[in-house]
Amino acid sequence: MSVRGATAIILWLLGSLMPARADDGYRLWLKYDQISDRAYLKECVKTLNSVMVTGDSPVLMAAREELLTGLGGMTGRKISDVKNITRGGVVVAGTFKSSPLIASLLPDLQTGTTGEEGYLIKTVTHKGKRIIVIASEGDKGVLYGAFHLLRLVSMGVSLKDLSVTEKPAVALRLLNHWDNLNRTVERGYAGFSIWNWHLLPDYISPLYKDYARANASIGINGAVITNVNANALVLTEPYLRKVAAIADVMRPYGIKIYLTARFSAPAEAGGLSTADPLDPDVIRWWSDKVAEIYSLIPDFGGFLVKANSEGQPGPQNYGRTHADGANMLADAVAPFGGVVMWRAFVYDNNVPVDRAMQACNEFIPLDGLFRKNVLVQVKNGPVDFQPREPFHPLFGSMPSTPLMTEFQITQEYLGCATHLVFLAPLFEECLQSDTYARGEGSTVADVIDGSLYGQSLTGMAGVANIGTERNWTGHLFGQANWYAFGRLAWQPALTSAEIADEWIRMTISHDPGVVEGISRMMLSSRETAVNYMTPLGLHHIMAQGHHWGPGPWVDQGRADWTSVYYHRADTAGIGFDRTVTGSNAVSQYFPPLNDIYNDLTTCPENLLLWFHHLPWDYRMSSGRTLWDELCYRYNEGALQAEGYKAYWETLEGKIDPEQYVHVLQLLKIQSKEAHWWRDACLAYFQTFSRRPFPSGIGKPDSTLEYYRGLKFYYVPGI
Amino acid sequence: MSVRGATAIILWLLGSLMPARADDGYRLWLKYDQISDRAYLKECVKTLNSVMVTGDSPVLMAAREELLTGLGGMTGRKISDVKNITRGGVVVAGTFKSSPLIASLLPDLQTGTTGEEGYLIKTVTHKGKRIIVIASEGDKGVLYGAFHLLRLVSMGVSLKDLSVTEKPAVALRLLNHWDNLNRTVERGYAGFSIWNWHLLPDYISPLYKDYARANASIGINGAVITNVNANALVLTEPYLRKVAAIADVMRPYGIKIYLTARFSAPAEAGGLSTADPLDPDVIRWWSDKVAEIYSLIPDFGGFLVKANSEGQPGPQNYGRTHADGANMLADAVAPFGGVVMWRAFVYDNNVPVDRAMQACNEFIPLDGLFRKNVLVQVKNGPVDFQPREPFHPLFGSMPSTPLMTEFQITQEYLGCATHLVFLAPLFEECLQSDTYARGEGSTVADVIDGSLYGQSLTGMAGVANIGTERNWTGHLFGQANWYAFGRLAWQPALTSAEIADEWIRMTISHDPGVVEGISRMMLSSRETAVNYMTPLGLHHIMAQGHHWGPGPWVDQGRADWTSVYYHRADTAGIGFDRTVTGSNAVSQYFPPLNDIYNDLTTCPENLLLWFHHLPWDYRMSSGRTLWDELCYRYNEGALQAEGYKAYWETLEGKIDPEQYVHVLQLLKIQSKEAHWWRDACLAYFQTFSRRPFPSGIGKPDSTLEYYRGLKFYYVPGI
Repeated sequence: MSVRGATAIILWLLGSLMPARADDGYRLWLKYDQISDRAYLKECVKTLNSVMVTGDSPVLMAAREELLTGLGGMTGRKISDVKNITRGGVVVAGTFKSSPLIASLLPDLQTGTTGEEGYLIKTVTHKGKRIIVIASEGDKGVLYGAFHLLRLVSMGVSLKDLSVTEKPAVALRLLNHWDNLNRTVERGYAGFSIWNWHLLPDYISPLYKDYARANASIGINGAVITNVNANALVLTEPYLRKVAAIADVMRPYGIKIYLTARFSAPAEAGGLSTADPLDPDVIRWWSDKVAEIYSLIPDFGGFLVKANSEGQPGPQNYGRTHADGANMLADAVAPFGGVVMWRAFVYDNNVPVDRAMQACNEFIPLDGLFRKNVLVQVKNGPVDFQPREPFHPLFGSMPSTPLMTEFQITQEYLGCATHLVFLAPLFEECLQSDTYARGEGSTVADVIDGSLYGQSLTGMAGVANIGTERNWTGHLFGQANWYAFGRLAWQPALTSAEIADEWIRMTISHDPGVVEGISRMMLSSRETAVNYMTPLGLHHIMAQGHHWGPGPWVDQGRADWTSVYYHRADTAGIGFDRTVTGSNAVSQYFPPLNDIYNDLTTCPENLLLWFHHLPWDYRMSSGRTLWDELCYRYNEGALQAEGYKAYWETLEGKIDPEQYVHVLQLLKIQSKEAHWWRDACLAYFQTFSRRPFPSGIGKPDSTLEYYRGLKFYYVPGI
Repeated sequence: MSVRGATAIILWLLGSLMPARADDGYRLWLKYDQISDRAYLKECVKTLNSVMVTGDSPVLMAAREELLTGLGGMTGRKISDVKNITRGGVVVAGTFKSSPLIASLLPDLQTGTTGEEGYLIKTVTHKGKRIIVIASEGDKGVLYGAFHLLRLVSMGVSLKDLSVTEKPAVALRLLNHWDNLNRTVERGYAGFSIWNWHLLPDYISPLYKDYARANASIGINGAVITNVNANALVLTEPYLRKVAAIADVMRPYGIKIYLTARFSAPAEAGGLSTADPLDPDVIRWWSDKVAEIYSLIPDFGGFLVKANSEGQPGPQNYGRTHADGANMLADAVAPFGGVVMWRAFVYDNNVPVDRAMQACNEFIPLDGLFRKNVLVQVKNGPVDFQPREPFHPLFGSMPSTPLMTEFQITQEYLGCATHLVFLAPLFEECLQSDTYARGEGSTVADVIDGSLYGQSLTGMAGVANIGTERNWTGHLFGQANWYAFGRLAWQPALTSAEIADEWIRMTISHDPGVVEGISRMMLSSRETAVNYMTPLGLHHIMAQGHHWGPGPWVDQGRADWTSVYYHRADTAGIGFDRTVTGSNAVSQYFPPLNDIYNDLTTCPENLLLWFHHLPWDYRMSSGRTLWDELCYRYNEGALQAEGYKAYWETLEGKIDPEQYVHVLQLLKIQSKEAHWWRDACLAYFQTFSRRPFPSGIGKPDSTLEYYRGLKFYYVPGI
C-alpha cells in the first residue's frame, strides 16, 4: 500500500464516521460513549483491554456483558473476553468462593468484609502483570463492583492503583412504582407505566432489561411494581405470570420484585366474605396465595401495604390494628424469606388532631408488636413530600421496629417533571437530621441503616419518577433524582455535591466549567423551589388534586386536603401553630429538639411557619418583617429560576444539542411557573397581610381573581 | 507518514468504529444507514456528493436538510451544501419559478405537469456535468421529490438516467388521530398520544418533527390531531395555542393541521343555550371561533365531524340535517380556504334497518345539498373496519358530493398492534372494487380521486396507528400500514406488492431472499387474519368493547353491537341475509353488482355470509359443506399464523437482531391468538352446526365455556 493509498483510506474511514447521534436520554448515566480525553483514553486502552469473569451464574454473566459493552464503548475497542491472564490490562471479576485465583490475589481478606453485595476493586500485580480485580463474597457484589469500575471510567477517574472497598449501608434499596394496571401512573409525569401488562408475559420489552441495568448500576436491589393504592387483580394467576416474567428479567441484575397487597384481596379476588386478618380463612387464603406467588417467583421480595389510609381497606375495617394486619401477611411470607413493608402514611379527617401528628399517635403504641420481617415505611416528613418538611418524628421513636424511609423521587409537589429540582439535598437534609433519640448524633440515617437500635433489617424506598418517556423521567434532570436516590440508599453518608458531580460527568459533560456550573445550579435548585413555592416553612398550598400549580386559596372539601388548613393565614398573621400551646406537634420530637422547634428564637427560619403562627410584622433575622421576608423569598425563588434559564443559555455549543434544547425549553417553563407561583401566592397572602410589597419587589402580573380562575384539564399524574 | 504509520491509523480507526446499534424502530423507513453494497455505494458517492437547493422557504429548507442528512447517512460522506454547479454529482432542487437554472434545465415543461405537489426528478447534463434535478411548481413538490430520491437510494435503485414524473392522485391525504386530550388513544395500541398537551405550547417534543418528516416522506399532507369523539376543550384559546405550536412544526413539511369539531361546542365551550346550526348566535359563534383559529394557524385545514353517531351531538338534535350542520361549519371556514369533512358513519339502534344500510339511507338524499368545501368521509365498508367487508355502497352513489374514504390503519378489529396484518391488500381491494356507478370500470379509486364525477376536492383519510411506543406503531409491521396508507393516498393505483417491496427494503433488508420471504408473508397476512377471525364473509364477532379477541357469543346490550346480530347462526345455518328477500342491502349496489351479490352462484365466496344466510350443508365450490369449509378456513388461518412464526425463525442472523426478537415475540403471540380465535369460534359455531369436525381438523383445545369465561382487563385502546 502506498502512503497515498493509505491516506485515501484514512480519509474514507474518517468520512464514514457518522456524527454522534444527538442524545435522547435513553441511556441515562450509562452512556459508554468513547472517552474524548486522549491521555485518559490511552490509559484506559492499556489498563482495560480484557475481561475475565470467573463463574457463570446469570448475575456474573450480566456483569461480564456490562463490562464488555461498557469498556468497549468507552475505549472504542473490542474488549477481549479471556479465560486466562496472559497479559496486563485484564479486569478479573468474581467471588472469592468461585475463584481460587481471586482468593489468592486477595489473601488477607476477612470474611464479611464485602458481604454478598459489597465488593473490592484493587489493582494488583499477578505474575508480573498489572490487572484490576473486582471481588466479592457474592455474585451481586461482583455486579455492583463492575458498575463501580464503569462509573470510575465514565467519570474519568485515574485507574492507577485502585483500591476501593464498598458495602451498602442499607439492606433493601427499593423503588416504589405507583403504577396502575391500566398503565396510568399516580403522580407519574414521565408518560405512562413501563410495565406493558397487556403484552406480558409473552412480550418482553427491551425497556425492562435497561431498567434493570440502570437500577443495578446504582445499587437498587428491589422494585415494588404496583401502586400502593392497590388493585387485587395483580394477585390473580394471569397477572402473577406477568409479574414472574418481569422478575425473570430483573433477577440477573440482583433486583427482587415486590407487590402491593390490597388488604381486601381475600374478599375481592378470593371470594371470601371478609378480609379480617385474624380470620382463619383469610389467613389460609393469603398463605395459599403467597405459596402460589413463590412457586412462580422463587425470589419474590414481599408486600408493600397502604392500609386504612385515604380510603384504602385495612385491618381497622375489622377492628384490628396495623400490627394485626402486617403480622398476618408477615407470617405468610416468612417461610419464604419475604418481608412486609407497612406504610405509616395514615391520617384521618375525622380525628380532630393535627394531621402531622397522627402517624406517631397510631404507630408508636405498636412498637414491639410487629413480626421480625415487618418494616414500617415512613415518609421523610410528617405531612406529604412537601418541598420542605421537618423529618418525620417517627424516626427514632420506634426502637423495636425497623423503620425504612420513603422518599419521593417523582416530583408530586415539586413542579412535576417540568421543574429542575435536584432532590439529593432534600434527601440529605432528612438523613442528616438529628433526631436526638439516643442523644445528640442520632441521625435519621442512623435509624435507617439500623445502627441506632442495632437492626439488621433495613430499607430505603423511593417513589419512582420513571415512565415511558424516551428519557425515562421526562426531565433530563429527573434522572439525577433517580440516581441520587440509589446512591444514597447504598451510602446515606454521600453528599449531594458528590452525587451531582458523578451524575453530571456521566450524563452531560466532563468540562470542569460546565460541571461546576451545572452542579451549582443543581445544588441550589431545591432551595429555589422552596422559595418560589413554600418558603419559611409553608406547606401544602398547592392546587387541589394535581398539586402542580399554586392553590393557597383552596378551602373546599376535606379539611386536611385544603391549603387553609396548613397556612392558617389571617389578618393577624400566618403559619401553623404546632407549639405546646398549639397542636403540640413539637412534643413528638425528642428533647432538646422539641424545645428548639417550640422556641421562636431557636426554631430554624426555614421551618418557622411549620411550627409557628406569627404576626405579619414579626421581625426576622434579616431585619425584615415576616411579610416583607415572605415577599423577598418568593421573589428570590422566581429570580433564581430565571437565572437557571440564563445560565443554561451559556451552555449552547458546550453540551449535546438535544440535551441543550430539551432542558432549555423546560427551564423556560420553570421560570414562567416560578413567577406564577410567586405572583399567585403573594396576591393571595396580601389579602391577609394588607401590606404593600416592599420596595424592589414587583407586584403580581395579574389579579388574584385571575390566578384563582385558572383552570387546568388533564394534568398528568392522574 | 510511513505506510506502517498509516496502517496503524487505519487499524485504529477501524477499531474505533462502534458496532451499529440495534434498531429500535424509531427511524421508521427513513433509516439512512450507510449503503452496504459496495458497487452501489460507489455509484451513489459519485452521483450524489452535493446538494444545491434554490430558494429558502421553510419547506425548501426542510428538503435541503433531509437531503443533506439522508444522502450523508447513506453515502457515509459529508454532502456539500453548494450554491453553484462546479462539478458533477450535484442534486439541484427547487421550483421553476424561484430558479431560472431549473427552468432552463427543463425548458419544454408544460405548466401544470407537476402542480404544487408533484415533481420531476431527472438526470441532466449541465455544462458537461451530470446532475440530478428535482423540480416542481411548488415548494411542497420539491420536498416530496427529495423524499422520492432518498427512497430510491434507500432501496438501492440505480441512479443512471433518472426520469421520474409524479403527481398525487388525491388532494387531501390525511391521518386521523383518535387521540384524546388526556393522551389516551381510542383504538390506539401503540402507547399513548404523541401530543403532550400539558407541556404544549412551550415544550416541543422532538417526536413532532420526526412525525412530520415521516408523513411528508410518503406524501401525507394533513393530520386531524383529535378524536372524532370530540372534546370542545380543544377549541378554547389555551388549547388552540397548543395546536398552533404543533402546526408550526408541521408547516415546513407541508402538513396542515385539522381538528375535530364537537357539534355542541357553542353550548359547551361558548355558553350558548343551543348548538342549532341555523341559530344566528351559533353561526356567529362558529364564525368567530374559526376566525380565532385562523389568526393563530393561518393554514388551518378545517374540521372533521362525527355527528349524531354513537352518542355524539349533531344537527339532528335540533331537527336539522347533516347537510345543515356541515354547511354551517363550511360557511365558517370557507373564507379561509378550509374544508369540512363530515363522516357518514351513522347508524341508529332504534332504526329497524340493517345497520349496513343506514348510511346510504341517510346520506344519498342529501347529495347535492352540501357546500362546495364539504367532503363526506366514508369508511371503506358499510359496517366498521372489519377484516373483510364489501366496499361501502355510498361510493358512486353521491355524484354531486366529494366522497373521501376513511381507512383504519390502527388494527381495531385486526389483532391490535400485536398481529402482523399488512393492510395494503385490504386498502387495495376496496380501491379497486368496481362500483359500476357509471358502468363497468367505475372503481372506488375513481370515486376517491374525483375522476368518476369530475371532482377536484378529493381526499383519503387513515385512522392512525401511532403512539408513544418507541417504534411509533407498537408492531414493527404496523409501520408498513402507515407507509402503505400514505403511498396509496398519493397513488391509489400502486399495488400491495410494490408497497411491500419498498417498505421491506427501506426498513429491514435488501437481501433478495429476505425481501421475497417477508413480502410473501405480508401479502398473505390479511387473508390469514380473515381466515382465523372472520372467514367467508363473517363479520363483527369480536369480543364486546375491546374488539381484540373472539366473541361470537356476544348477545347482550345494544343489538347492533352484538355478534349474533351479524352472524345469525342457528341450527339451520349461518350468515346475514342481505338479499332482496332479506334486508335487501344488495339493492344499494349498482347493477349488475346487486344481482351478483344477490345470486348465490355469483356472490364471491369471501363475502358469502355477508350477503347470505346458508344451511350448514350448503355445498361450497371446494366441494366441502359450509360447516367443513368454515372449519377448514379457521384451521388454515391458525396454521398460516404458525407458519409466519416458523418462517421468521429462519431470519435469525439475517436481519437486525432487535427487529428479529421484537417481531418473533409478537408472531408467537399472534400464532397463539390465531389458535384461540379458531378454537373459540369453532367451539361456538359447532353448538349450532351440530356437526363433527372434518378429518384433519383438530378439536378446540378447551371447552366453549372456557373461552366464554375468559376475562380481560385494561385492554389497550380504551
